[in-house]
Amino acid sequence: MAANTAVDVAAPADEFDLIRRLAATQRGGREDVLLGIGDDGAVLVPASDRHLVAVCDTLVAGRHFPADTDPFAIGWKALAVNLSDLAAMGANAQWALLAMTLPAPDAAWVERFGHGFATLAKMSGVDLVGGDTTRGPLAITVTALGAVGAGAALRRDGARVGDRVCVAGVLGEAALGLVAIEQGRRADPRLAHCIARLDRPEPQLALGQALLGIASACIDVSDGLLADLGHIAAASAVGIRLELARVPHPPLELGAALGLEAAAVIDRALAGGDDYLLAFTVPAARLADARERLVSLALPLVEIGEVRAGSGVVVVPADGRPHICRQAGYNHFGNDDARQA
Amino acid sequence: MAANTAVDVAAPADEFDLIRRLAATQRGGREDVLLGIGDDGAVLVPASDRHLVAVCDTLVAGRHFPADTDPFAIGWKALAVNLSDLAAMGANAQWALLAMTLPAPDAAWVERFGHGFATLAKMSGVDLVGGDTTRGPLAITVTALGAVGAGAALRRDGARVGDRVCVAGVLGEAALGLVAIEQGRRADPRLAHCIARLDRPEPQLALGQALLGIASACIDVSDGLLADLGHIAAASAVGIRLELARVPHPPLELGAALGLEAAAVIDRALAGGDDYLLAFTVPAARLADARERLVSLALPLVEIGEVRAGSGVVVVPADGRPHICRQAGYNHFGNDDARQA
Repeated sequence: MAANTAVDVAAPADEFDLIRRLAATQRGGREDVLLGIGDDGAVLVPASDRHLVAVCDTLVAGRHFPADTDPFAIGWKALAVNLSDLAAMGANAQWALLAMTLPAPDAAWVERFGHGFATLAKMSGVDLVGGDTTRGPLAITVTALGAVGAGAALRRDGARVGDRVCVAGVLGEAALGLVAIEQGRRADPRLAHCIARLDRPEPQLALGQALLGIASACIDVSDGLLADLGHIAAASAVGIRLELARVPHPPLELGAALGLEAAAVIDRALAGGDDYLLAFTVPAARLADARERLVSLALPLVEIGEVRAGSGVVVVPADGRPHICRQAGYNHFGNDDARQA
Repeated sequence: MAANTAVDVAAPADEFDLIRRLAATQRGGREDVLLGIGDDGAVLVPASDRHLVAVCDTLVAGRHFPADTDPFAIGWKALAVNLSDLAAMGANAQWALLAMTLPAPDAAWVERFGHGFATLAKMSGVDLVGGDTTRGPLAITVTALGAVGAGAALRRDGARVGDRVCVAGVLGEAALGLVAIEQGRRADPRLAHCIARLDRPEPQLALGQALLGIASACIDVSDGLLADLGHIAAASAVGIRLELARVPHPPLELGAALGLEAAAVIDRALAGGDDYLLAFTVPAARLADARERLVSLALPLVEIGEVRAGSGVVVVPADGRPHICRQAGYNHFGNDDARQA
């Protein structure tokens, strides 16, 4: 452009149009959001006398979901995996930032993605307050922010010998849902629940907050139960003894409908990943309190094991013979076989 | 796995190893970080009586940088573009979360990336407190968090008729740096400064904070001066009259060394993008105050235009004839030609 030539570029601002379309799908309305989408940054009012909890997770097409997944499910899940991390800290959920990398400016895709994101955001009381939209291979990164009472956050490193190991739901359903999708059986009504657990996991935010002051350690089961209990064991410098017979798993008939033997169903409960349930430890003396609080959430308190001296996760099978588990679960750069132990 | 079979997976935990290597490159040490990398979330202490500012930006390989860029520069820049957004809000910088998607578990790459990130983090007082590491096409998303006095944040929508439009640095250097790299002239000492501006932009954090209470609007120049001033004009419902002769641009001899005519150098100052300088508006009555504060930062206050009634950005060339600029600058889904007006 010469110094005396007008700048006159009429190209449509597609990036900004996409952002407008995405923003239009969101409900918003939190009073602690002073400035949301549309400036260089969001301006937020932190809850007074509480600590801020920040989490960040990425979903990559072809790795965490097939590229042709319903964008509603991608939007939901991108937020869900982050809210599950907030839940594991005992935090509430306040705000989210969304970084979308898209191969093409597909307005319909963005709107459907936005509806999935917004549906869970509304259920969870979260406002989308900012982010970035870029062009490239499909990937979604969400940062979620919440608050927890000062000094109250649930951590991985608080498990003590004698504590009971608990969950409050069925493990392995999402992994069965993946098998169902791989077999092209999305329409089978028997499998709808497992597919929903994979596509639209419901973060246990209320559970995490109910466990504040009671649980000694907590994690969300994303990599697989054994792997994630292994993280608690390592951080807490303890061992965990898991009683296989107590681990809640999907009905074996459901596995049979997918051509899976009983052992393969149990496998998925132990190492399937993508469950986004909380696994936590509770001092024996607080079990009754924990059970009472969970009743008010209509959740079962399922004891699946005990914290012992030692290290690692020991699985006690039905015949009572212990085995040491070194590592099992999803590892983005490990052998893919590690996903299923 | 049968119900009586041990889980015994010996695969190395490469994802966790990468995270450990990355974490080892970071200095950390902020007292307001109660829990950093290694749990489900970070636990942070918000500054009392201040508002939280949250920003999020992605860099995609092949889009924002060539895939073979020195990972030190990628690490630096991934943080820098976010700190520049905090600067534009007048916020300080406290914490960052990093979502890395990598095509392969390359430990040396991650360590060099981490050193670049950590070098700027240390300069800026930022702790890396969490994030995610996934496998896929190379992309980096950073979320940065900082604080600003309640009600004090600089925004895009505060420009008023009569305000002066200012910058505090030279525009277009990063774009010349890109030309230099495209011509394979990384080793040319005359071009080192421009290449450094592209690879290692220094966010104007101190400037943003110095402008609190003085600037009426502020933005960081990432898409290009005209595009970003256009955002201020649109958000503030005003027009901006830019005096071309006042826009600080790289020496024309430097352009000549790259085979660029004078007009092409000016082009890059107006629409080159990637400068990560602040552009801001100041009420005429506060110009002296602004100049005084900038002197203490050893920065020039360069007046480049004025806020007028109307809309859009009007560039007044040397011969005095105005032209209306509708849009120019980087748009991730627009015509690539839009990048250079």
